[in-house]
Amino acid sequence: MNENVRVAIIGSTGYGGVELIRLLASHPRAEVTSVISSSSAGAPIAEGYPHLTEIRTDLLDDVDPALIKGKADVVFLATPAGVAAKLVPSLLDAGLKVIDISGDFRLKSRDSYKEWYKKEPADQAYIDQAVYGLAEVYGNGVNGVDFVSNPGCYPTATLLGLIPAVSAGFIDPSTIIIDAKSGVSGAGRGASLGTHYSELNENFKAYKLNQHQHIPEIEQTLSDIAGRPVVTTFSTHLVPMTRGIMSTMYATIQGDHAAEDFIALYRQYYEGRKFVRIRPLGVTPATKEVWGSNYCDIGFAVDKRTGRVTIVSVIDNLVKGAAGQAIQNLNLMMGWDETLGLQFVPAYP
Amino acid sequence: MNENVRVAIIGSTGYGGVELIRLLASHPRAEVTSVISSSSAGAPIAEGYPHLTEIRTDLLDDVDPALIKGKADVVFLATPAGVAAKLVPSLLDAGLKVIDISGDFRLKSRDSYKEWYKKEPADQAYIDQAVYGLAEVYGNGVNGVDFVSNPGCYPTATLLGLIPAVSAGFIDPSTIIIDAKSGVSGAGRGASLGTHYSELNENFKAYKLNQHQHIPEIEQTLSDIAGRPVVTTFSTHLVPMTRGIMSTMYATIQGDHAAEDFIALYRQYYEGRKFVRIRPLGVTPATKEVWGSNYCDIGFAVDKRTGRVTIVSVIDNLVKGAAGQAIQNLNLMMGWDETLGLQFVPAYP
Amino acid sequence: MNENVRVAIIGSTGYGGVELIRLLASHPRAEVTSVISSSSAGAPIAEGYPHLTEIRTDLLDDVDPALIKGKADVVFLATPAGVAAKLVPSLLDAGLKVIDISGDFRLKSRDSYKEWYKKEPADQAYIDQAVYGLAEVYGNGVNGVDFVSNPGCYPTATLLGLIPAVSAGFIDPSTIIIDAKSGVSGAGRGASLGTHYSELNENFKAYKLNQHQHIPEIEQTLSDIAGRPVVTTFSTHLVPMTRGIMSTMYATIQGDHAAEDFIALYRQYYEGRKFVRIRPLGVTPATKEVWGSNYCDIGFAVDKRTGRVTIVSVIDNLVKGAAGQAIQNLNLMMGWDETLGLQFVPAYP
Amino acid sequence: MNENVRVAIIGSTGYGGVELIRLLASHPRAEVTSVISSSSAGAPIAEGYPHLTEIRTDLLDDVDPALIKGKADVVFLATPAGVAAKLVPSLLDAGLKVIDISGDFRLKSRDSYKEWYKKEPADQAYIDQAVYGLAEVYGNGVNGVDFVSNPGCYPTATLLGLIPAVSAGFIDPSTIIIDAKSGVSGAGRGASLGTHYSELNENFKAYKLNQHQHIPEIEQTLSDIAGRPVVTTFSTHLVPMTRGIMSTMYATIQGDHAAEDFIALYRQYYEGRKFVRIRPLGVTPATKEVWGSNYCDIGFAVDKRTGRVTIVSVIDNLVKGAAGQAIQNLNLMMGWDETLGLQFVPAYP
Repeated sequence: MNENVRVAIIGSTGYGGVELIRLLASHPRAEVTSVISSSSAGAPIAEGYPHLTEIRTDLLDDVDPALIKGKADVVFLATPAGVAAKLVPSLLDAGLKVIDISGDFRLKSRDSYKEWYKKEPADQAYIDQAVYGLAEVYGNGVNGVDFVSNPGCYPTATLLGLIPAVSAGFIDPSTIIIDAKSGVSGAGRGASLGTHYSELNENFKAYKLNQHQHIPEIEQTLSDIAGRPVVTTFSTHLVPMTRGIMSTMYATIQGDHAAEDFIALYRQYYEGRKFVRIRPLGVTPATKEVWGSNYCDIGFAVDKRTGRVTIVSVIDNLVKGAAGQAIQNLNLMMGWDETLGLQFVPAYP
Repeated sequence: MNENVRVAIIGSTGYGGVELIRLLASHPRAEVTSVISSSSAGAPIAEGYPHLTEIRTDLLDDVDPALIKGKADVVFLATPAGVAAKLVPSLLDAGLKVIDISGDFRLKSRDSYKEWYKKEPADQAYIDQAVYGLAEVYGNGVNGVDFVSNPGCYPTATLLGLIPAVSAGFIDPSTIIIDAKSGVSGAGRGASLGTHYSELNENFKAYKLNQHQHIPEIEQTLSDIAGRPVVTTFSTHLVPMTRGIMSTMYATIQGDHAAEDFIALYRQYYEGRKFVRIRPLGVTPATKEVWGSNYCDIGFAVDKRTGRVTIVSVIDNLVKGAAGQAIQNLNLMMGWDETLGLQFVPAYP
Repeated sequence: MNENVRVAIIGSTGYGGVELIRLLASHPRAEVTSVISSSSAGAPIAEGYPHLTEIRTDLLDDVDPALIKGKADVVFLATPAGVAAKLVPSLLDAGLKVIDISGDFRLKSRDSYKEWYKKEPADQAYIDQAVYGLAEVYGNGVNGVDFVSNPGCYPTATLLGLIPAVSAGFIDPSTIIIDAKSGVSGAGRGASLGTHYSELNENFKAYKLNQHQHIPEIEQTLSDIAGRPVVTTFSTHLVPMTRGIMSTMYATIQGDHAAEDFIALYRQYYEGRKFVRIRPLGVTPATKEVWGSNYCDIGFAVDKRTGRVTIVSVIDNLVKGAAGQAIQNLNLMMGWDETLGLQFVPAYP
Repeated sequence: MNENVRVAIIGSTGYGGVELIRLLASHPRAEVTSVISSSSAGAPIAEGYPHLTEIRTDLLDDVDPALIKGKADVVFLATPAGVAAKLVPSLLDAGLKVIDISGDFRLKSRDSYKEWYKKEPADQAYIDQAVYGLAEVYGNGVNGVDFVSNPGCYPTATLLGLIPAVSAGFIDPSTIIIDAKSGVSGAGRGASLGTHYSELNENFKAYKLNQHQHIPEIEQTLSDIAGRPVVTTFSTHLVPMTRGIMSTMYATIQGDHAAEDFIALYRQYYEGRKFVRIRPLGVTPATKEVWGSNYCDIGFAVDKRTGRVTIVSVIDNLVKGAAGQAIQNLNLMMGWDETLGLQFVPAYP
């Protein structure tokens, strides 16, 4: 395909939505032609987000598939759980391409969705149609499709950090323990005591131990890669910062593999994929080293005393963990280079 | 001029230098062909800045005008005070265009430089040659010149916030009081107790009251605009954050001007200049609303009880306050649109 | 008086309330016998504040003057604006001593309260009865009284920083400009977009310029000290930290006074008052230097070029700006040493 | 014993030293009579720590056992690794009681010290004499002794979180994985790029994976408790905050134990020990809930799917992880109640 695309964003007043606006502003072949918010339709988007003053002077549109179809070719959904399940069928039926950043189409099992999300799942037919857009792993399957389900933030950091080792049999999947940490923007813009400044500043806390809705997404994919059911221990923590996720992952090594072997394995696995960077021996990445960019950086430590490997994987949760990878999937859907419009240098410091 | 330019950066291992690298990476007509550091020459730049892994794989060059001339057309200096004073003559003599981000060529008076910087000033001939690149005010004078002195971070936020009012006689220049606040990155990358994490986190402190070296730069320009000598009260504070400057400025209003009048005046003064955004009535900008971008946002509050106006001006100290405005000056020097390669949407949140 | 006192706290689930609990836990002559919250009555206080686990195992009481009278001798009100105006009469009538930390009894003029607080003011008779408890200035008048109105956080830092100079005629009161900055805890525990972590972290913003309800409180007191009406320019800013207020204050010096003169004047004015510390020449205090303590630290810079003095005053807004000064007032009411149970060393770092 | 004690602090200009000063200021039976710093002897301590203005007006003493003996009964060493190894013998020989907060006397094996600390170990005789002061576990052995080695910050949080489970055989010690996170104050006051504000703010990073010098301390103690050699996987991370440690610990459950069983086990194990608080079912502690206090709070999550328990343990690294536990050991040495002078309510928020 050759022509440019017009993009609509449902959920433009959330952090994922405004990040899409920021990133797409410099995309050479995509243009945001409609910013949509059911809750604030009719208001100027810059009113709630003054950083967009004079950058986007348009008003927020309401959610209306026919209207969207008149303005756009592709729709991104950056909506709370449960919304996309209801909206996506009408958008696809209207002939729009759809990239869903929410979790509504990630789990292939409706029962699993019900159990972990506590919401009514989407129709199985649409779930089956959704391609899981973990770009560096399943990207080839995205080319040309109409509907992509964009991976969650924790699963992106975690799966990119584990898949090559699981795939190659370097680690025992039954021993995987994932200790994940996230900046607060992952919780969205809704105000609550749990995201109140004075409660989080100078504080570090764990939450949803063994109960996070990203667990079945991680396990579904690891099971697919391993060829057998994988269950994991998965913990999430809130870091007093805005952006960034680190997954620190532990597993027992199968066979005799040094850190150098992991580095070589991962470099080979991700060869040609610009957004995964494998760190050299003895170095693990910090979250700030990918801030504002679409990179996922990975490093390793092997401990001969315990026979375990520690894998550290970092992303910017709003970019590679949401809006950035969604644009990467847009590029893949359109048959473009996956890096198009996405080669941001991390903002440091 | 039409051709693209090759850029060298002296001081590439400072925060100003890496910010130039970040911003120039997406500039359509400039390419960084040499990253230079006298202290780390020969080392890969990504070693000290892992966020540049696989983005810049080149080694740091030494400071050598002849070598630079072979690799570049334009040189940015992002160096500590006192370095540019010595280097610039040889760079200009080698036929290079020069943009100095340090303070060495901002003050027209060598005595003033000596008094405030406590260093040996540059030769008067070169000082005289330097054009002060406060782009929205003196930008026309930059077109086609070979040597620009880029304004300081505090002066940029402060002067853009004061000049229209001083120029139009809306405020009494003798009453100006400037209460400025900055993120910590303005202090550079050199480790010291004053920039130690545990000392600054959850802390707010004033420093260099009436003694900051940006005072004479502000007063020199305000005096030029006012047509008579202006002295100001200027205070600086450290905010526990990395980027961002706010100048809160106070002055007695001359005549009868409401906030609406200030807004109208400033919108007219900055008409056509995309990087200054004037906020509507009752709204003042926050630093995060320009984070990572080249914007300077300004808002007003007028108090009839006291007859004073409060002007709030914010920038990202590393972008509009350093690397961004320097690129804006490059654009102006080359006769390009001043916004070329600089239209970054602020990163929010 | 000799006996110990039993203390009840209305508004125990706000930040001011829990800070009272923290500070009073080590007071030798006061014991908190009832924690009260109209919104959470019946629940264990530690449920909403797990840091109090096993420290306070009691349940929250409802607001009931008769019940309180049975359990306590003194009541602190740490309630939102408008609540104390209604409650205080019944508490006083029940024979309780009252210390109101809210703003309901600070302004002597009911019209002024209505204008700035946009709420119905208290009865004039009770307003007249309230003694304004700025301890280091009006502390002698607190001895033995039954009802104290505790000063606001900004007024405490600001007034302690200005009163000696105004009182001695060192500065021209008509030139006073106050640029104040506060940590976020001053906004209380109620969740809102304005106190959402991701919005405030790595951000610095101004708010309520010339409109803060602490302005009439400051001006009422300065007018009292100056013996004539004083109006001021007063700006407030939010700092990305939890605790701490800095007031940076500017005024034109009357007569010929160096910084040393201000230091000498303030040391004399506050002689014998342990909670005000005057810094030596060339030094101004940072907020962290009083964190968690009841100190107000003050420093000076005099600029001969402009004839102005810059006064920097810092407090912990929850201690000297609220709970700490309230306990200081309790001590004064009871005829005890004002430092009793309050000599906390600031927590550093 | 009945009389009060006089205390000297070697290393008073480090964060551990000033925290001892803060905590001991309200201790009813101990008085700091000498603050000692080899690097700053002769200077007022408040010069480098203005928060101590008018609180401590004394000058720093030099390190001189004879001088110390004249001024004090007990010495705390809050010194960098390698210093106490040399100093302690002369202090003990002078008849002083000693509490060493550094790591020099924690490891019973000199070889292990050499391997992990890369320094020359202390004499074996003195190592043998040192009692490891993990108060809630080995506290009975501290009563009446002259020389205590105070546990490290990470080991305190980790061991208190693991020992009851290991001791009771609830978990398989060979499966223990410890993912620890610390605020930056643990790195001390020495300025370096690694603790530079702009590098750490809005950043989360791992460091010293499998290489931290606290690993052998943890393993030595767990081996002692388990009665057989235990090796662990131990990771450390830096959190952008000043104080607080969280250890998130993972292990495979032996037998059939629910979270309730762990809670009951730990409550029984720590019965009567006021500084360990076990959280109820479904709740894990956050670091801010112990900020500034001597508490160690512990919570549990059990995952039936994986058969693993997740244990979360938090402390304030400068209090329970250093100065606070050291004072607790002082109390135990003197035969006093271990909580004497230590019952600080956490500062929240």
